[in-house]
Amino acid sequence: MPITLYDLAGAEPERRFSPFCWRIKMALAHKGLAVETIPWRFTEKDRLPQPNQGRVPVIVDNGTVVHDSTAIADYLEAQYPDRPSLFGGAVGRALTSFVQNWTETVLHPGLIEFAVLDIWRHAAAQDQPYFRQSREERFGKTLEEVCNGRETRLPAFRASLAPLRRTVERQQFLGGAAPLYVDYIVFGAFQWVRAISDFEVLAADDPVSAWRSRMLDLFGGFARRHPAYGD
Amino acid sequence: MPITLYDLAGAEPERRFSPFCWRIKMALAHKGLAVETIPWRFTEKDRLPQPNQGRVPVIVDNGTVVHDSTAIADYLEAQYPDRPSLFGGAVGRALTSFVQNWTETVLHPGLIEFAVLDIWRHAAAQDQPYFRQSREERFGKTLEEVCNGRETRLPAFRASLAPLRRTVERQQFLGGAAPLYVDYIVFGAFQWVRAISDFEVLAADDPVSAWRSRMLDLFGGFARRHPAYGD
Repeated sequence: MPITLYDLAGAEPERRFSPFCWRIKMALAHKGLAVETIPWRFTEKDRLPQPNQGRVPVIVDNGTVVHDSTAIADYLEAQYPDRPSLFGGAVGRALTSFVQNWTETVLHPGLIEFAVLDIWRHAAAQDQPYFRQSREERFGKTLEEVCNGRETRLPAFRASLAPLRRTVERQQFLGGAAPLYVDYIVFGAFQWVRAISDFEVLAADDPVSAWRSRMLDLFGGFARRHPAYGD
Repeated sequence: MPITLYDLAGAEPERRFSPFCWRIKMALAHKGLAVETIPWRFTEKDRLPQPNQGRVPVIVDNGTVVHDSTAIADYLEAQYPDRPSLFGGAVGRALTSFVQNWTETVLHPGLIEFAVLDIWRHAAAQDQPYFRQSREERFGKTLEEVCNGRETRLPAFRASLAPLRRTVERQQFLGGAAPLYVDYIVFGAFQWVRAISDFEVLAADDPVSAWRSRMLDLFGGFARRHPAYGD
């Protein structure tokens, strides 16, 4: 029986843009586990299986409900130890935390200021008022104001990628010669923006762009096949 | 026969402040390897054994000369596989690169602007002209200008530590329950500044400060015993 994944969708049901759901979709592919995704919208909190925190990803695996991407990754690693490892052991798991924390304190905050208006544009009609109101409260300004002049912020954003850039120009993946969950964490952020925005955040000759392309190639071009902008 | 380590020293021979040498001193302690350090000054390039790049750390181990902290760590791991691992395996080695790149592109550049004048003050008299000239060329301004108003940069610097802070408030060490070379990389940066500056870069209640204190406690308070400022 495939695992069920509640996966954030836009107005088009196949446009999936949650960075946290992308982590899990890549992790499931890494483990070779079959998945059936259910498109879910921000305002469909009542449709999620219990327990949950009103957010996706949520998975159901043989009746077991797990929510929160980190908890799901740990669950998959523990539940399917004979499948390819997501972390490469305890040290890999510990160091993945640092990269995750970098992703969530540097990469996500940088990207959201490029893409939040494009997320709103691609959101389902029923989600748009909720999304606009909750994000405008968080930012203390309109979505238009957040994204205004985003081109001018590109150099600082690209500079902030230095730790990632320097790593993936010297090794194929963050996990080394092969990708691991840590790669999916960082990739999820780029795929989030790529799914809903034609604003290219990476220069074509950036080693990060080459790494992202390697990620898009994984699992037979799995992520590349999904509705998105860019190559 | 103990390993010989050429270790950057200030005017006081026991004041050792190279972040890269601290990585290796902690790594040698981690492996339980005996070491004899030779105080070395920036301008003593002719005193280093061959081959070298005019910088420390350089080690001599049974006649084998290894230079560059990363090459030395890899050498120690390969040469002493039965001693406690510095990386915890190939994945740990790969992920250590990301944290090292973060350290060298975020942490070091942030810290040097607090401490470069204090380094000059503590440098050996013979090193001071070289140090001032080479660093003023690099910065395009005087050391005094670099450090001017450093208090005003503290909030941005402390904000830049978010990935480290969030990690070490949830686990004892970057490596997990026990420290690994990745911890020594980051610790080396803080110990660098601590060795030569009374300017406290961390708030007392910062989880990073608690982690630094755990690092200072390692190996019977090894790093804490060396000439430095602060607790």
